[in-house]
Amino acid sequence: MTDPCPDALVALAHRLADAAGAVARRHFRTPIAADTKSNHTPVTIADREAEQAMRAILAAERPQDGILGEEHGTAGLDREYVWVLDPIDGTKSFMTGRPLFGTLIGLMRGGRPVLGVVDHPALGERWVGGAGHPTALNGRPARVRPCADAADAILSATTPDMFAGADAAAFRRVSAACKYTLYGSDCYAYSQLASGFIDLVVERDLGTWDWAALVPVVEAAGGVMTDWQGRPLALGSPGEVVAAGDPALHRRALELLAG
Amino acid sequence: MTDPCPDALVALAHRLADAAGAVARRHFRTPIAADTKSNHTPVTIADREAEQAMRAILAAERPQDGILGEEHGTAGLDREYVWVLDPIDGTKSFMTGRPLFGTLIGLMRGGRPVLGVVDHPALGERWVGGAGHPTALNGRPARVRPCADAADAILSATTPDMFAGADAAAFRRVSAACKYTLYGSDCYAYSQLASGFIDLVVERDLGTWDWAALVPVVEAAGGVMTDWQGRPLALGSPGEVVAAGDPALHRRALELLAG
Repeated sequence: MTDPCPDALVALAHRLADAAGAVARRHFRTPIAADTKSNHTPVTIADREAEQAMRAILAAERPQDGILGEEHGTAGLDREYVWVLDPIDGTKSFMTGRPLFGTLIGLMRGGRPVLGVVDHPALGERWVGGAGHPTALNGRPARVRPCADAADAILSATTPDMFAGADAAAFRRVSAACKYTLYGSDCYAYSQLASGFIDLVVERDLGTWDWAALVPVVEAAGGVMTDWQGRPLALGSPGEVVAAGDPALHRRALELLAG
Repeated sequence: MTDPCPDALVALAHRLADAAGAVARRHFRTPIAADTKSNHTPVTIADREAEQAMRAILAAERPQDGILGEEHGTAGLDREYVWVLDPIDGTKSFMTGRPLFGTLIGLMRGGRPVLGVVDHPALGERWVGGAGHPTALNGRPARVRPCADAADAILSATTPDMFAGADAAAFRRVSAACKYTLYGSDCYAYSQLASGFIDLVVERDLGTWDWAALVPVVEAAGGVMTDWQGRPLALGSPGEVVAAGDPALHRRALELLAG
Protein backbone atom coordinates (compact mmCIF):
# COMPACT_ATOMS: atom_id res chain seq x y z
CA MET A 1 0.00 0.00 0.00
CA THR A 2 1.38 3.36 -1.01
CA ASP A 3 -0.42 6.72 -1.01
CA PRO A 4 -2.88 7.16 1.84
CA CYS A 5 -6.48 6.72 0.80
CA PRO A 6 -8.13 10.18 0.88
CA ASP A 7 -10.21 10.82 4.00
CA ALA A 8 -13.17 11.86 1.89
CA LEU A 9 -13.28 8.40 0.32
CA VAL A 10 -13.05 6.74 3.74
CA ALA A 11 -16.00 8.84 4.90
CA LEU A 12 -17.91 7.90 1.75
CA ALA A 13 -17.21 4.21 2.37
CA HIS A 14 -18.73 4.57 5.84
CA ARG A 15 -21.86 6.10 4.35
CA LEU A 16 -22.12 3.27 1.83
CA ALA A 17 -21.95 0.79 4.71
CA ASP A 18 -24.59 2.75 6.63
CA ALA A 19 -26.93 2.59 3.64
CA ALA A 20 -26.43 -1.12 2.96
CA GLY A 21 -26.68 -1.99 6.65
CA ALA A 22 -30.01 -0.23 7.00
CA VAL A 23 -31.42 -2.40 4.20
CA ALA A 24 -29.92 -5.57 5.66
CA ARG A 25 -31.29 -4.89 9.14
CA ARG A 26 -34.75 -4.14 7.75
CA HIS A 27 -34.91 -7.54 6.02
CA PHE A 28 -32.99 -9.62 8.59
CA ARG A 29 -35.19 -12.34 10.13
CA THR A 30 -38.18 -11.45 8.02
CA PRO A 31 -39.64 -13.96 5.55
CA ILE A 32 -37.83 -13.29 2.26
CA ALA A 33 -37.69 -15.32 -0.90
CA ALA A 34 -34.30 -16.55 -2.03
CA ASP A 35 -33.46 -17.28 -5.66
CA THR A 36 -30.64 -19.56 -6.64
CA LYS A 37 -28.08 -17.92 -8.90
CA SER A 38 -26.21 -19.60 -11.72
CA ASN A 39 -23.34 -20.35 -9.33
CA HIS A 40 -25.77 -22.17 -6.98
CA THR A 41 -25.56 -19.54 -4.26
CA PRO A 42 -28.72 -17.92 -2.93
CA VAL A 43 -29.56 -14.26 -3.40
CA THR A 44 -32.37 -12.33 -1.77
CA ILE A 45 -34.13 -9.04 -2.31
CA ALA A 46 -32.03 -7.72 0.57
CA ASP A 47 -28.80 -8.34 -1.39
CA ARG A 48 -30.19 -6.54 -4.42
CA GLU A 49 -31.66 -3.59 -2.51
CA ALA A 50 -28.55 -3.11 -0.39
CA GLU A 51 -26.33 -2.96 -3.48
CA GLN A 52 -28.74 -0.55 -5.19
CA ALA A 53 -28.62 1.71 -2.14
CA MET A 54 -24.83 1.89 -2.38
CA ARG A 55 -24.87 2.37 -6.17
CA ALA A 56 -27.29 5.28 -5.87
CA ILE A 57 -24.88 7.08 -3.55
CA LEU A 58 -21.91 6.42 -5.82
CA ALA A 59 -23.81 7.53 -8.93
CA ALA A 60 -24.58 10.84 -7.23
CA GLU A 61 -21.22 11.48 -5.61
CA ARG A 62 -18.57 9.59 -7.57
CA PRO A 63 -19.80 9.21 -11.15
CA GLN A 64 -16.17 9.18 -12.30
CA ASP A 65 -15.42 5.88 -10.47
CA GLY A 66 -15.92 2.32 -11.67
CA ILE A 67 -18.12 -0.22 -9.88
CA LEU A 68 -17.89 -3.98 -9.54
CA GLY A 69 -20.88 -5.34 -7.64
CA GLU A 70 -21.85 -8.91 -6.89
CA GLU A 71 -25.50 -8.51 -7.82
CA HIS A 72 -25.72 -5.73 -10.42
CA GLY A 73 -22.59 -6.11 -12.56
CA THR A 74 -19.66 -3.95 -13.50
CA ALA A 75 -18.98 -0.58 -15.11
CA GLY A 76 -15.83 1.48 -15.68
CA LEU A 77 -13.25 -1.06 -14.52
CA ASP A 78 -10.61 1.05 -16.33
CA ARG A 79 -11.16 4.05 -14.02
CA GLU A 80 -8.56 5.10 -11.44
CA TYR A 81 -10.85 4.13 -8.57
CA VAL A 82 -13.18 1.12 -8.64
CA TRP A 83 -15.63 0.34 -5.83
CA VAL A 84 -16.10 -3.38 -5.23
CA LEU A 85 -19.37 -4.16 -3.47
CA ASP A 86 -20.72 -7.30 -1.82
CA PRO A 87 -23.94 -6.13 -0.19
CA ILE A 88 -24.42 -9.27 1.91
CA ASP A 89 -21.53 -11.68 2.23
CA GLY A 90 -22.79 -14.81 3.97
CA THR A 91 -26.24 -14.85 2.43
CA LYS A 92 -26.91 -18.28 3.95
CA SER A 93 -26.15 -16.87 7.39
CA PHE A 94 -28.40 -13.91 6.62
CA MET A 95 -31.23 -16.18 5.46
CA THR A 96 -30.98 -18.35 8.57
CA GLY A 97 -31.05 -15.59 11.15
CA ARG A 98 -27.34 -15.85 11.99
CA PRO A 99 -25.80 -12.41 12.61
CA LEU A 100 -22.27 -13.06 11.24
CA PHE A 101 -23.05 -11.91 7.67
CA GLY A 102 -21.41 -8.71 6.47
CA THR A 103 -21.42 -5.92 3.94
CA LEU A 104 -18.08 -5.76 2.11
CA ILE A 105 -16.92 -2.53 0.50
CA GLY A 106 -13.54 -2.50 -1.19
CA LEU A 107 -11.93 0.39 -3.02
CA MET A 108 -9.38 -0.48 -5.70
CA ARG A 109 -6.91 2.00 -7.17
CA GLY A 110 -5.07 0.91 -10.27
CA GLY A 111 -6.34 -2.64 -9.79
CA ARG A 112 -5.09 -3.01 -6.20
CA PRO A 113 -7.28 -2.75 -3.07
CA VAL A 114 -6.49 0.36 -1.00
CA LEU A 115 -9.44 0.56 1.40
CA GLY A 116 -11.78 -1.99 2.95
CA VAL A 117 -14.91 -1.87 5.08
CA VAL A 118 -16.21 -5.07 6.67
CA ASP A 119 -19.48 -4.16 8.31
CA HIS A 120 -21.68 -6.55 10.30
CA PRO A 121 -25.04 -4.76 10.48
CA ALA A 122 -26.75 -7.19 12.84
CA LEU A 123 -23.87 -6.97 15.33
CA GLY A 124 -23.13 -3.26 15.08
CA GLU A 125 -19.47 -4.03 14.36
CA ARG A 126 -17.48 -2.40 11.57
CA TRP A 127 -13.83 -3.04 10.69
CA VAL A 128 -12.21 -0.40 8.45
CA GLY A 129 -8.64 -0.26 7.23
CA GLY A 130 -6.45 0.59 4.27
CA ALA A 131 -3.52 2.61 2.98
CA GLY A 132 -2.70 5.23 5.62
CA HIS A 133 -5.60 4.07 7.78
CA PRO A 134 -4.66 1.44 10.38
CA THR A 135 -7.47 -1.02 10.85
CA ALA A 136 -10.04 -0.11 13.48
CA LEU A 137 -13.10 -1.85 14.89
CA ASN A 138 -15.78 0.76 15.56
CA GLY A 139 -13.03 3.36 15.73
CA ARG A 140 -10.77 1.47 18.15
CA PRO A 141 -7.44 0.07 16.88
CA ALA A 142 -7.54 -3.56 15.74
CA ARG A 143 -4.37 -5.59 15.34
CA VAL A 144 -3.42 -9.13 14.39
CA ARG A 145 -1.63 -11.28 16.97
CA PRO A 146 1.75 -12.98 16.55
CA CYS A 147 1.57 -16.73 15.90
CA ALA A 148 4.50 -18.08 13.92
CA ASP A 149 3.94 -21.79 14.56
CA ALA A 150 1.08 -23.61 12.83
CA ALA A 151 0.82 -25.93 15.86
CA ASP A 152 -0.45 -22.95 17.88
CA ALA A 153 -2.69 -21.55 15.17
CA ILE A 154 -6.46 -21.36 14.88
CA LEU A 155 -7.57 -21.81 11.27
CA SER A 156 -10.94 -20.81 9.84
CA ALA A 157 -12.80 -21.50 6.59
CA THR A 158 -16.44 -21.09 5.66
CA THR A 159 -16.91 -24.78 4.89
CA PRO A 160 -14.73 -27.75 3.97
CA ASP A 161 -17.21 -28.33 1.14
CA MET A 162 -15.55 -25.43 -0.76
CA PHE A 163 -12.53 -27.68 -1.45
CA ALA A 164 -12.47 -30.63 -3.84
CA GLY A 165 -9.79 -33.00 -5.17
CA ALA A 166 -6.26 -31.64 -4.87
CA ASP A 167 -7.56 -28.48 -3.17
CA ALA A 168 -9.21 -30.59 -0.48
CA ALA A 169 -5.93 -32.44 0.11
CA ALA A 170 -4.08 -29.11 0.30
CA PHE A 171 -6.57 -27.73 2.82
CA ARG A 172 -6.34 -30.91 4.91
CA ARG A 173 -2.55 -30.50 5.11
CA VAL A 174 -3.00 -27.01 6.54
CA SER A 175 -5.81 -28.07 8.86
CA ALA A 176 -3.86 -31.06 10.17
CA ALA A 177 -0.91 -28.78 11.03
CA CYS A 178 -3.06 -26.28 12.96
CA LYS A 179 -4.31 -26.50 16.53
CA TYR A 180 -8.00 -26.00 15.75
CA THR A 181 -10.05 -25.56 12.58
CA LEU A 182 -13.28 -23.60 12.82
CA TYR A 183 -15.97 -23.35 10.16
CA GLY A 184 -18.93 -21.17 9.37
CA SER A 185 -17.74 -17.64 10.05
CA ASP A 186 -18.09 -16.26 6.49
CA CYS A 187 -16.39 -12.85 6.31
CA TYR A 188 -16.43 -12.66 10.10
CA ALA A 189 -13.33 -14.90 10.04
CA TYR A 190 -11.29 -12.04 8.55
CA SER A 191 -12.67 -9.65 11.16
CA GLN A 192 -11.59 -12.10 13.86
CA LEU A 193 -8.15 -12.34 12.27
CA ALA A 194 -7.77 -8.55 12.03
CA SER A 195 -8.51 -8.30 15.76
CA GLY A 196 -6.06 -11.04 16.75
CA PHE A 197 -8.60 -13.70 17.72
CA ILE A 198 -7.63 -16.25 15.07
CA ASP A 199 -4.47 -16.75 13.04
CA LEU A 200 -5.23 -18.10 9.59
CA VAL A 201 -8.00 -18.19 6.98
CA VAL A 202 -7.70 -20.41 3.90
CA GLU A 203 -10.47 -20.32 1.30
CA ARG A 204 -11.07 -20.72 -2.39
CA ASP A 205 -13.83 -19.95 -4.89
CA LEU A 206 -14.00 -16.30 -3.82
CA GLY A 207 -15.15 -13.57 -6.18
CA THR A 208 -13.40 -10.20 -6.38
CA TRP A 209 -16.26 -8.75 -4.28
CA ASP A 210 -15.44 -11.29 -1.56
CA TRP A 211 -11.78 -10.42 -1.08
CA ALA A 212 -11.43 -6.77 -2.21
CA ALA A 213 -12.55 -5.33 1.13
CA LEU A 214 -10.77 -7.98 3.19
CA VAL A 215 -7.22 -7.40 1.92
CA PRO A 216 -6.88 -3.80 3.17
CA VAL A 217 -8.52 -4.65 6.52
CA VAL A 218 -6.14 -7.58 7.07
CA GLU A 219 -3.03 -5.76 5.82
CA ALA A 220 -3.67 -2.53 7.73
CA ALA A 221 -4.07 -4.66 10.88
CA GLY A 222 -0.57 -6.06 10.33
CA GLY A 223 -1.48 -9.26 8.52
CA VAL A 224 -0.75 -10.74 5.11
CA MET A 225 -3.29 -11.83 2.51
CA THR A 226 -2.42 -13.31 -0.89
CA ASP A 227 -3.48 -16.05 -3.26
CA TRP A 228 -2.30 -19.63 -2.67
CA GLN A 229 0.90 -18.93 -4.62
CA GLY A 230 1.75 -15.93 -2.44
CA ARG A 231 0.90 -13.39 -5.13
CA PRO A 232 -0.91 -10.15 -4.30
CA LEU A 233 -4.64 -10.23 -4.93
CA ALA A 234 -5.68 -8.03 -7.83
CA LEU A 235 -8.42 -7.80 -10.45
CA GLY A 236 -8.34 -11.09 -12.32
CA SER A 237 -6.86 -13.09 -9.43
CA PRO A 238 -8.07 -16.63 -9.01
CA GLY A 239 -10.41 -16.94 -6.06
CA GLU A 240 -7.94 -18.70 -3.76
CA VAL A 241 -6.91 -16.75 -0.67
CA VAL A 242 -4.75 -17.28 2.38
CA ALA A 243 -4.79 -14.66 5.14
CA ALA A 244 -2.54 -14.79 8.19
CA GLY A 245 -1.88 -12.53 11.12
CA ASP A 246 1.79 -13.53 11.29
CA PRO A 247 3.98 -13.38 8.14
CA ALA A 248 5.86 -16.52 9.24
CA LEU A 249 2.59 -18.45 9.51
CA HIS A 250 1.59 -17.15 6.09
CA ARG A 251 4.80 -18.58 4.58
CA ARG A 252 4.21 -21.90 6.34
CA ALA A 253 0.63 -22.06 5.04
CA LEU A 254 1.85 -21.48 1.48
CA GLU A 255 4.33 -24.36 1.90
CA LEU A 256 1.63 -26.67 3.22
CA LEU A 257 -0.75 -25.71 0.40
CA ALA A 258 1.97 -26.43 -2.17
CA GLY A 259 2.41 -29.92 -0.71
CA MET B 1 -43.50 -33.46 28.45
CA THR B 2 -46.10 -33.75 31.14
CA ASP B 3 -46.55 -31.55 34.24
CA PRO B 4 -45.78 -27.90 33.67
CA CYS B 5 -42.43 -26.84 35.04
CA PRO B 6 -43.11 -24.65 38.10
CA ASP B 7 -42.82 -20.91 37.39
CA ALA B 8 -40.42 -20.49 40.30
CA LEU B 9 -37.95 -22.85 38.65
CA VAL B 10 -38.26 -20.99 35.33
CA ALA B 11 -37.51 -17.73 37.13
CA LEU B 12 -34.53 -19.37 38.86
CA ALA B 13 -33.22 -20.63 35.50
CA HIS B 14 -33.33 -17.04 34.19
CA ARG B 15 -31.30 -15.88 37.18
CA LEU B 16 -28.74 -18.64 36.60
CA ALA B 17 -28.39 -17.47 33.01
CA ASP B 18 -28.02 -13.86 34.16
CA ALA B 19 -25.19 -14.85 36.50
CA ALA B 20 -23.33 -16.98 33.97
CA GLY B 21 -23.79 -14.41 31.24
CA ALA B 22 -22.28 -11.65 33.35
CA VAL B 23 -19.14 -13.74 33.79
CA ALA B 24 -18.98 -14.62 30.11
CA ARG B 25 -19.39 -11.01 28.98
CA ARG B 26 -16.70 -9.88 31.41
CA HIS B 27 -14.16 -12.30 29.92
CA PHE B 28 -15.27 -12.17 26.26
CA ARG B 29 -12.55 -10.76 24.00
CA THR B 30 -10.06 -10.37 26.81
CA PRO B 31 -6.80 -12.33 26.81
CA ILE B 32 -7.56 -15.55 28.67
CA ALA B 33 -5.56 -18.73 28.93
CA ALA B 34 -7.16 -21.91 27.64
CA ASP B 35 -6.28 -25.35 28.98
CA THR B 36 -6.93 -28.46 26.96
CA LYS B 37 -9.12 -30.98 28.74
CA SER B 38 -8.74 -34.76 28.55
CA ASN B 39 -11.29 -34.84 25.72
CA HIS B 40 -9.13 -32.37 23.73
CA THR B 41 -11.60 -29.50 24.06
CA PRO B 42 -10.45 -26.18 25.47
CA VAL B 43 -11.67 -24.74 28.74
CA THR B 44 -11.07 -21.27 30.10
CA ILE B 45 -11.36 -19.51 33.42
CA ALA B 46 -14.60 -18.04 32.09
CA ASP B 47 -16.15 -21.53 31.79
CA ARG B 48 -15.14 -22.37 35.34
CA GLU B 49 -16.22 -19.07 36.90
CA ALA B 50 -19.54 -19.04 35.06
CA GLU B 51 -20.39 -22.52 36.29
CA GLN B 52 -19.34 -21.60 39.84
CA ALA B 53 -21.62 -18.57 39.72
CA MET B 54 -24.58 -20.81 38.85
CA ARG B 55 -23.65 -23.45 41.43
CA ALA B 56 -23.48 -20.83 44.18
CA ILE B 57 -27.06 -19.77 43.46
CA LEU B 58 -28.29 -23.38 43.36
CA ALA B 59 -26.47 -24.24 46.61
CA ALA B 60 -28.22 -21.34 48.33
CA GLU B 61 -31.69 -21.76 46.85
CA ARG B 62 -32.09 -25.39 45.76
CA PRO B 63 -29.80 -27.54 47.92
CA GLN B 64 -32.25 -30.43 47.47
CA ASP B 65 -31.58 -30.64 43.71
CA GLY B 66 -28.86 -32.54 41.88
CA ILE B 67 -26.31 -30.90 39.61
CA LEU B 68 -24.52 -32.11 36.50
CA GLY B 69 -22.02 -29.52 35.28
CA GLU B 70 -19.54 -29.72 32.44
CA GLU B 71 -16.65 -28.25 34.40
CA HIS B 72 -17.21 -29.08 38.07
CA GLY B 73 -18.74 -32.56 38.09
CA THR B 74 -21.95 -34.10 39.37
CA ALA B 75 -23.82 -34.46 42.64
CA GLY B 76 -27.22 -35.92 43.56
CA LEU B 77 -28.18 -37.39 40.19
CA ASP B 78 -30.84 -39.46 42.02
CA ARG B 79 -32.77 -36.34 43.09
CA GLU B 80 -36.18 -35.46 41.59
CA TYR B 81 -34.74 -32.38 39.88
CA VAL B 82 -31.26 -32.23 38.39
CA TRP B 83 -29.79 -29.04 36.90
CA VAL B 84 -27.56 -29.66 33.90
CA LEU B 85 -25.13 -26.81 33.27
CA ASP B 86 -22.86 -25.96 30.36
CA PRO B 87 -21.50 -22.52 31.27
CA ILE B 88 -20.05 -21.81 27.82
CA ASP B 89 -21.07 -24.05 24.95
CA GLY B 90 -18.90 -23.19 21.98
CA THR B 91 -15.72 -22.44 23.90
CA LYS B 92 -13.78 -22.16 20.64
CA SER B 93 -16.19 -19.47 19.45
CA PHE B 94 -15.85 -17.75 22.81
CA MET B 95 -12.05 -17.86 22.64
CA THR B 96 -12.00 -16.46 19.12
CA GLY B 97 -14.28 -13.50 19.70
CA ARG B 98 -17.25 -15.01 17.88
CA PRO B 99 -20.52 -14.15 19.63
CA LEU B 100 -22.48 -17.36 18.87
CA PHE B 101 -21.43 -19.20 22.05
CA GLY B 102 -24.10 -19.86 24.67
CA THR B 103 -24.85 -20.76 28.26
CA LEU B 104 -26.96 -23.91 28.42
CA ILE B 105 -29.15 -24.61 31.43
CA GLY B 106 -31.27 -27.75 31.42
CA LEU B 107 -33.56 -28.95 34.17
CA MET B 108 -34.22 -32.68 34.30
CA ARG B 109 -37.04 -34.27 36.26
CA GLY B 110 -36.94 -38.01 36.70
CA GLY B 111 -34.13 -38.21 34.15
CA ARG B 112 -35.98 -36.34 31.39
CA PRO B 113 -35.40 -32.69 30.44
CA VAL B 114 -38.37 -30.47 31.31
CA LEU B 115 -36.93 -26.96 30.96
CA GLY B 116 -34.20 -25.42 28.86
CA VAL B 117 -32.48 -22.06 28.65
CA VAL B 118 -30.19 -21.29 25.71
CA ASP B 119 -28.67 -17.91 26.43
CA HIS B 120 -26.26 -16.04 24.13
CA PRO B 121 -24.70 -13.42 26.40
CA ALA B 122 -22.75 -11.58 23.70
CA LEU B 123 -25.87 -11.23 21.54
CA GLY B 124 -28.42 -10.48 24.24
CA GLU B 125 -30.61 -13.33 22.99
CA ARG B 126 -32.20 -15.94 25.23
CA TRP B 127 -34.38 -18.83 24.16
CA VAL B 128 -36.41 -20.47 26.97
CA GLY B 129 -38.88 -23.34 26.69
CA GLY B 130 -40.16 -26.44 28.42
CA ALA B 131 -43.14 -28.31 29.80
CA GLY B 132 -46.02 -25.84 29.97
CA HIS B 133 -43.82 -23.02 28.70
CA PRO B 134 -43.90 -22.55 24.91
CA THR B 135 -40.50 -21.51 23.66
CA ALA B 136 -39.80 -17.79 23.59
CA LEU B 137 -36.91 -15.66 22.39
CA ASN B 138 -36.48 -12.73 24.76
CA GLY B 139 -40.11 -13.20 25.78
CA ARG B 140 -41.55 -13.31 22.26
CA PRO B 141 -42.97 -16.61 20.94
CA ALA B 142 -40.53 -18.72 18.91
CA ARG B 143 -41.76 -21.50 16.66
CA VAL B 144 -40.25 -24.01 14.25
CA ARG B 145 -41.24 -23.85 10.58
CA PRO B 146 -42.78 -26.64 8.50
CA CYS B 147 -40.36 -28.38 6.15
CA ALA B 148 -41.29 -31.97 5.39
CA ASP B 149 -39.00 -32.51 2.40
CA ALA B 150 -35.24 -32.88 2.92
CA ALA B 151 -34.68 -31.31 -0.52
CA ASP B 152 -35.98 -28.01 0.92
CA ALA B 153 -34.18 -28.32 4.23
CA ILE B 154 -31.27 -26.37 5.69
CA LEU B 155 -29.05 -28.63 7.81
CA SER B 156 -26.56 -27.48 10.42
CA ALA B 157 -23.75 -29.14 12.38
CA THR B 158 -20.86 -27.67 14.33
CA THR B 159 -18.22 -29.32 12.16
CA PRO B 160 -17.99 -32.29 9.80
CA ASP B 161 -14.89 -33.26 11.78
CA MET B 162 -17.18 -34.56 14.56
CA PHE B 163 -18.09 -37.55 12.36
CA ALA B 164 -15.78 -40.45 11.52
CA GLY B 165 -16.13 -43.76 9.72
CA ALA B 166 -19.71 -45.02 9.46
CA ASP B 167 -20.96 -41.88 11.24
CA ALA B 168 -19.34 -39.72 8.57
CA ALA B 169 -21.04 -41.72 5.85
CA ALA B 170 -24.36 -41.42 7.67
CA PHE B 171 -23.97 -37.66 8.00
CA ARG B 172 -23.04 -37.36 4.32
CA ARG B 173 -26.27 -39.16 3.36
CA VAL B 174 -28.27 -36.58 5.28
CA SER B 175 -26.22 -33.66 3.99
CA ALA B 176 -26.49 -34.82 0.38
CA ALA B 177 -30.28 -35.00 0.69
CA CYS B 178 -30.61 -31.46 2.08
CA LYS B 179 -30.61 -28.15 0.21
CA TYR B 180 -27.76 -26.53 2.17
CA THR B 181 -25.45 -27.61 4.98
CA LEU B 182 -24.11 -24.93 7.30
CA TYR B 183 -21.35 -25.37 9.87
CA GLY B 184 -20.02 -23.54 12.87
CA SER B 185 -23.11 -22.42 14.75
CA ASP B 186 -22.50 -24.40 17.96
CA CYS B 187 -25.65 -24.25 20.13
CA TYR B 188 -26.89 -21.31 18.06
CA ALA B 189 -28.04 -23.88 15.47
CA TYR B 190 -30.74 -25.10 17.87
CA SER B 191 -31.79 -21.52 18.57
CA GLN B 192 -32.09 -20.96 14.80
CA LEU B 193 -34.15 -24.15 14.52
CA ALA B 194 -36.45 -23.17 17.39
CA SER B 195 -37.17 -19.88 15.62
CA GLY B 196 -37.86 -21.46 12.23
CA PHE B 197 -34.70 -20.28 10.43
CA ILE B 198 -33.23 -23.73 9.77
CA ASP B 199 -34.78 -27.19 9.63
CA LEU B 200 -32.41 -29.86 10.86
CA VAL B 201 -29.41 -30.32 13.17
CA VAL B 202 -27.47 -33.59 13.21
CA GLU B 203 -24.58 -33.99 15.63
CA ARG B 204 -22.74 -36.56 17.69
CA ASP B 205 -20.28 -36.63 20.55
CA LEU B 206 -22.50 -34.42 22.72
CA GLY B 207 -22.38 -34.57 26.51
CA THR B 208 -25.53 -34.48 28.62
CA TRP B 209 -24.76 -30.81 29.34
CA ASP B 210 -24.82 -30.12 25.60
CA TRP B 211 -28.30 -31.48 24.87
CA ALA B 212 -30.24 -31.20 28.17
CA ALA B 213 -31.19 -27.54 27.62
CA LEU B 214 -31.74 -27.95 23.90
CA VAL B 215 -34.41 -30.66 23.99
CA PRO B 216 -37.05 -28.60 25.88
CA VAL B 217 -36.34 -25.49 23.78
CA VAL B 218 -36.73 -27.44 20.53
CA GLU B 219 -39.77 -29.46 21.67
CA ALA B 220 -41.64 -26.50 23.18
CA ALA B 221 -41.12 -24.68 19.86
CA GLY B 222 -42.91 -27.53 18.06
CA GLY B 223 -39.86 -29.55 17.02
CA VAL B 224 -38.57 -33.05 17.65
CA MET B 225 -35.20 -33.99 19.12
CA THR B 226 -34.02 -37.55 19.74
CA ASP B 227 -30.96 -39.74 19.39
CA TRP B 228 -30.07 -41.22 15.99
CA GLN B 229 -32.35 -44.21 16.69
CA GLY B 230 -35.32 -41.97 17.40
CA ARG B 231 -35.24 -42.60 21.15
CA PRO B 232 -35.88 -39.81 23.66
CA LEU B 233 -32.73 -38.25 25.09
CA ALA B 234 -32.28 -39.06 28.76
CA LEU B 235 -29.47 -39.45 31.28
CA GLY B 236 -27.15 -42.09 29.88
CA SER B 237 -28.07 -41.43 26.24
CA PRO B 238 -25.31 -41.73 23.71
CA GLY B 239 -24.23 -38.31 22.46
CA GLU B 240 -25.88 -38.58 19.04
CA VAL B 241 -28.72 -36.14 18.39
CA VAL B 242 -31.03 -35.25 15.56
CA ALA B 243 -33.28 -32.21 15.93
CA ALA B 244 -35.89 -31.21 13.36
CA GLY B 245 -38.54 -28.56 13.16
CA ASP B 246 -40.89 -30.80 11.16
CA PRO B 247 -41.70 -34.33 12.46
CA ALA B 248 -41.76 -35.68 8.89
CA LEU B 249 -38.26 -34.36 8.27
CA HIS B 250 -37.13 -35.91 11.55
CA ARG B 251 -38.39 -39.32 10.39
CA ARG B 252 -36.62 -38.88 7.06
CA ALA B 253 -33.37 -37.93 8.77
CA LEU B 254 -33.54 -41.08 10.92
CA GLU B 255 -34.02 -43.17 7.75
CA LEU B 256 -31.04 -41.50 6.07
CA LEU B 257 -28.86 -41.97 9.16
CA ALA B 258 -29.81 -45.67 9.29
CA GLY B 259 -28.66 -46.06 5.68
